[in-house]
Amino acid sequence: SYINMDPGVYSTPYHPSYDVREIVTVEKLMENGLGPNGGMIRAAEIIEENMHIVSGKINSLNSDFILIDTPGQIELFLFRPMGPRLIEDIARYSQTVSVYIIDPTLASSSSGLAISLTLPLITRLRLKVPTVSVINKSDMPEISKVERFMENISNLGDEIAREDAGLITDLASRYIQLLNEFSKTMRIVKTSAKTGEGMNELYTLIHEALCECGDLM
Amino acid sequence: SYINMDPGVYSTPYHPSYDVREIVTVEKLMENGLGPNGGMIRAAEIIEENMHIVSGKINSLNSDFILIDTPGQIELFLFRPMGPRLIEDIARYSQTVSVYIIDPTLASSSSGLAISLTLPLITRLRLKVPTVSVINKSDMPEISKVERFMENISNLGDEIAREDAGLITDLASRYIQLLNEFSKTMRIVKTSAKTGEGMNELYTLIHEALCECGDLM
Repeated sequence: SYINMDPGVYSTPYHPSYDVREIVTVEKLMENGLGPNGGMIRAAEIIEENMHIVSGKINSLNSDFILIDTPGQIELFLFRPMGPRLIEDIARYSQTVSVYIIDPTLASSSSGLAISLTLPLITRLRLKVPTVSVINKSDMPEISKVERFMENISNLGDEIAREDAGLITDLASRYIQLLNEFSKTMRIVKTSAKTGEGMNELYTLIHEALCECGDLM
Repeated sequence: SYINMDPGVYSTPYHPSYDVREIVTVEKLMENGLGPNGGMIRAAEIIEENMHIVSGKINSLNSDFILIDTPGQIELFLFRPMGPRLIEDIARYSQTVSVYIIDPTLASSSSGLAISLTLPLITRLRLKVPTVSVINKSDMPEISKVERFMENISNLGDEIAREDAGLITDLASRYIQLLNEFSKTMRIVKTSAKTGEGMNELYTLIHEALCECGDLM
């Protein structure tokens, strides 16, 4: 089954078994005078207030796999109470894995890659469920630049050190070192929603993350 | 002078000397069929394409202080090319400091505080200018909980370890340790836009960050 959790989306490329827009849409809130940002924040609050309805509907679905499509803006789902509450509610009744999708256009600069490796770590800490990272759009030309960066991630710290001076340098290089270890633990998969590349590998990774026998996070 | 860089805001509580809505508004893009999220992303792209206009106008202002109000969604400014491009353009001609505003409602849970301490670090790495952190809304009751957390930040690692098992535990506690060091370096100031508390301290902190004599980042 597919679930849409984005109150701001206009149309989804799938037919959701449950759609959070049954509760609230950003469009409607904007008609009532809120701006796009205010509308999204208010929608997240309204969803959180009605979380028992959302998680009740999701938990009552009878499927082997449920794919939950979260809002494009990570802040809306991760930094506000909505996302953690939802995952807490559903992880109580079923095995739950979060899939963090890295955009190669962001990850193809040094600071962008640092962000791209930090966000799955934050996702892991915040949602408290195993987190799998994938780089999507592996059919795009940026991917080769990302791969070069990833291969020698410790250079990232050097690069930041070259650009910066002072206390940040030491901190940044230790930060990058930690992200490096983390990304090794995580084994990031390249996928393409367009060509289907990497989907089997992603499936295996999710399976391993669910299987509690391993050390995988 | 005040600058509004948020293409989605409906009204600002100040009179901007330059307003990015001269170039594009999310509202207009939504009238042309985009959703709120798509509209904000497209607006960020259009602003980036016209960055020379924006930075030209900002650089030509004749003020001692220029305050740039960035979009509420951090992703829009920090993760896309718009923000780094703007800061690069203006930091070439004037001393630039970023002020990261921590929301106490997010920072009053363990994972929320981890996020709240990570984001100024990411901001620093991404914008490559000194970054000062403030906790706003110090008049709110949540602030005492944040302070308790901050006082003994190493407990955060312990707390996450209690909740989780496996590889993440070790990584999380080292991550928290790093954030702890970072936040000590940063000296976070409590402020209240409502009562004016902490504004002098913030001013001092910004001054120190601009003064290159110190070790402050």
